[in-house]
Amino acid sequence: MKLKVIAYARNGHTDKFGIPRQSREESPILTRIVFESEYNVREALRGIEGYSYLWLIWGFSEAHSGLLTADAVESQTEPAAGLTWSPTVRPPRLGGNKRMGVFATRSPFRPNPIGLSSVRLLKIDEGELIVSGADVLDGTPIYDIKPYLSFSDSHPEAKNGFAEETKDYQLEVLSVKESLSKEWNVPERVAEDILYILRQDPRPGYQDDPERVYKMDYGGWRVEFKVNLKSQIYIQSIYKVNRDTI
Amino acid sequence: MKLKVIAYARNGHTDKFGIPRQSREESPILTRIVFESEYNVREALRGIEGYSYLWLIWGFSEAHSGLLTADAVESQTEPAAGLTWSPTVRPPRLGGNKRMGVFATRSPFRPNPIGLSSVRLLKIDEGELIVSGADVLDGTPIYDIKPYLSFSDSHPEAKNGFAEETKDYQLEVLSVKESLSKEWNVPERVAEDILYILRQDPRPGYQDDPERVYKMDYGGWRVEFKVNLKSQIYIQSIYKVNRDTI
Repeated sequence: MKLKVIAYARNGHTDKFGIPRQSREESPILTRIVFESEYNVREALRGIEGYSYLWLIWGFSEAHSGLLTADAVESQTEPAAGLTWSPTVRPPRLGGNKRMGVFATRSPFRPNPIGLSSVRLLKIDEGELIVSGADVLDGTPIYDIKPYLSFSDSHPEAKNGFAEETKDYQLEVLSVKESLSKEWNVPERVAEDILYILRQDPRPGYQDDPERVYKMDYGGWRVEFKVNLKSQIYIQSIYKVNRDTI
Repeated sequence: MKLKVIAYARNGHTDKFGIPRQSREESPILTRIVFESEYNVREALRGIEGYSYLWLIWGFSEAHSGLLTADAVESQTEPAAGLTWSPTVRPPRLGGNKRMGVFATRSPFRPNPIGLSSVRLLKIDEGELIVSGADVLDGTPIYDIKPYLSFSDSHPEAKNGFAEETKDYQLEVLSVKESLSKEWNVPERVAEDILYILRQDPRPGYQDDPERVYKMDYGGWRVEFKVNLKSQIYIQSIYKVNRDTI
């Protein structure tokens, strides 16, 4: 099957470092869904305002381009002879040393690099959908948008396999929103997003060097930070590197 | 993006009439996921037994072939000039006379005919996955399988838009499982599936003629039934038309 791009996601995630590993209800990160001209038809959204969540089916556009160094640890498993894909991946959250079957993970390194995210529909703005919680890179192609149906899609009691152990994993950030605004002039809205992202651990793969300075871009800002052995993030600096993207 | 078929779904739904309109937790209908030889690699499933639900991303293979007469009422809206798709569809459950935006529905008539179903993982059997609740036709191509993660995918409080009104819609079947087994020699397991399917209203589109005899095939059996004006199904006969498919 050949898929046509119906829309693109636009958000502050210009950098793959920092994209949360799953969509989360509590995510403050906003994404605009901008339809391609052929699909930019108001009628196609009629009734969508009655849903609080939507599904996005999208493409891991860089997954196979070799650019995803953040996930290098995930792809370390070389495809076996005769295969163009790798049956196992090493989820970063498991420390990068445990292999799981690719169909037991949400890894981008899959036979078909399709992503799936449930996002909260916040509003419809001049034919664009404004959603929160999309764990996608800025510019991600979207192939389908479906309403979320609680009676068929919601299974709160579902067993989460190996993801259960790591689902509540977070880092502690040794800064508060006010300090980001006051010390580095980060707009309040961007500051909130950055703190959320830092708590999700945007480090590439699994690293444990407390001296290493990491960089992460979001919404036109660059954050430089260290992580100590107590899983606390210390922000070294935040500065503007680009025009605002959100 | 071009998608490769990784597996095919095998179940008793040899007939599109009778496929439930959404996957449901309580569905007794079993589906086997049979991997294509390239993807039939045990390692790719490592860890999947830890999940109780999976996502299937699949293709509405007949959606554009003109064979889907059951959904004809849904596709009545002709694509406007210059479009190859129709921005609105008429969901059968709304009586076929109300138009909704295609992205506010799960209709197969979408720009990219991708289906999405959460299914219950029952067991792994010689490299095949046995699941229940898949609302797919026998032979449906599958493009991706992902673990269901309750912390990102489950939103029990989600608003269901227009689907809220019709989610509990069911017909009453004026037969019990025992009569199907005794009267028509239907195996018990198939009888249960047939009763479930009949309750979901397998009539094509929206029909209200109590004299009309409907036919529906499932698992090698054909069911002939009528629906009276009190939304009760009367089974006229059930007979074998094909070898067992489940």
